[in-house]
Amino acid sequence: MAKIGVILSGCGVYDGSEIHEAVITLLAIDRAGAEAVCMAPDTAQMHVVNHLSGEVAEGETRNVLVESARIARGNIKDIRTVDVGDFDALILPGGFGAAKNLCDFAVKGPDCSAQPEVARLVRETVAAKKPLAAVCIAPAVLSRVLGGDKLAHKLTIGTDEGTAQALSAMGSEHVNCPVSECVIDRDNKIISSPAYMLAGRISEAADGIEKTVKALIEMI
Amino acid sequence: MAKIGVILSGCGVYDGSEIHEAVITLLAIDRAGAEAVCMAPDTAQMHVVNHLSGEVAEGETRNVLVESARIARGNIKDIRTVDVGDFDALILPGGFGAAKNLCDFAVKGPDCSAQPEVARLVRETVAAKKPLAAVCIAPAVLSRVLGGDKLAHKLTIGTDEGTAQALSAMGSEHVNCPVSECVIDRDNKIISSPAYMLAGRISEAADGIEKTVKALIEMI
Repeated sequence: MAKIGVILSGCGVYDGSEIHEAVITLLAIDRAGAEAVCMAPDTAQMHVVNHLSGEVAEGETRNVLVESARIARGNIKDIRTVDVGDFDALILPGGFGAAKNLCDFAVKGPDCSAQPEVARLVRETVAAKKPLAAVCIAPAVLSRVLGGDKLAHKLTIGTDEGTAQALSAMGSEHVNCPVSECVIDRDNKIISSPAYMLAGRISEAADGIEKTVKALIEMI
Repeated sequence: MAKIGVILSGCGVYDGSEIHEAVITLLAIDRAGAEAVCMAPDTAQMHVVNHLSGEVAEGETRNVLVESARIARGNIKDIRTVDVGDFDALILPGGFGAAKNLCDFAVKGPDCSAQPEVARLVRETVAAKKPLAAVCIAPAVLSRVLGGDKLAHKLTIGTDEGTAQALSAMGSEHVNCPVSECVIDRDNKIISSPAYMLAGRISEAADGIEKTVKALIEMI
């Protein structure tokens, strides 16, 4: 049974993993007969957002690994304990957590840095020529790591011009993509899909994520 | 477009809505061409559980509506403001939140009480002869309300004998059901499915929930 690493970044679109994207990813992996290996960094979230008001909850703190465990039903590893031998392919669902907790793209744009353990695992995956996918805003993490390493590669975050330009500035070739599709960089085995960067409905995000997971597993 | 009320109970299997069940419900509703109307009570959770350790987080408090908003991406109503005219059918995903925040079955078993606004909406739905569904442990909420009202009805929570006996004690006729199926009480338009009361894999829960949502929408 193929093992698919899933890097989570908390639990909730505004400060963590986008919950719909994460669950749709886990369901697509299971329906393909593969096994999800969930992981997250054991660090504090950038902040906590009240998802009813949309405001930052001042003074509140939450841990990325502990909150990600909600999505994983407790079956999750500290990313520090994971290496590329533990999975056959790797995927990063989106949500602001990818741009706040897995890197600081949400604050610093193309001047961002990636979380060190996430950067390590992305590099190990590419070096091992294992397939790698990212959804929604999570391609920013790949762009930061692979662009910084001067690896020529293609990615999508959908059609948002400002975000696409920031990814180009970090060294990615950005390819516009409609919401229900994905972009496949066959040379580097990298797949990406816009999901909620463009989706107005959960089924639109699901269509693109299901194609992404299918392509990811076919490349193993 | 049919509107399906979805009562959430927080965000995380051990103290709120089971996240997989809730998202699979929302996706099945959207793929059926219907619209989800998410709602939750604006009350404190029974407690907060650290989903990594499984332990209660002493001294921490979270609000059911605010945490449910994570699953609903902010698009959620206080259940107090909702009445039966706002939807064509109603569904309750599971998770311990259904048995801790929508009623106190997790603590009191068959001596439990339902949250008053949840009880009101369940009664309004049955009185209006609109279809009603509950997943996983959430049938305990229906059992408490409808059993208390002496309405003869059929439900399932899977095959767990102790839980089934508690539902019988509250006035339900419990019907054993395998994980990927649902039980349909056609007379009362009530559908239920075991989901994570039995599921070992997310796809097993999804199979039953997808059948539940399909039956729910067909009964409108």
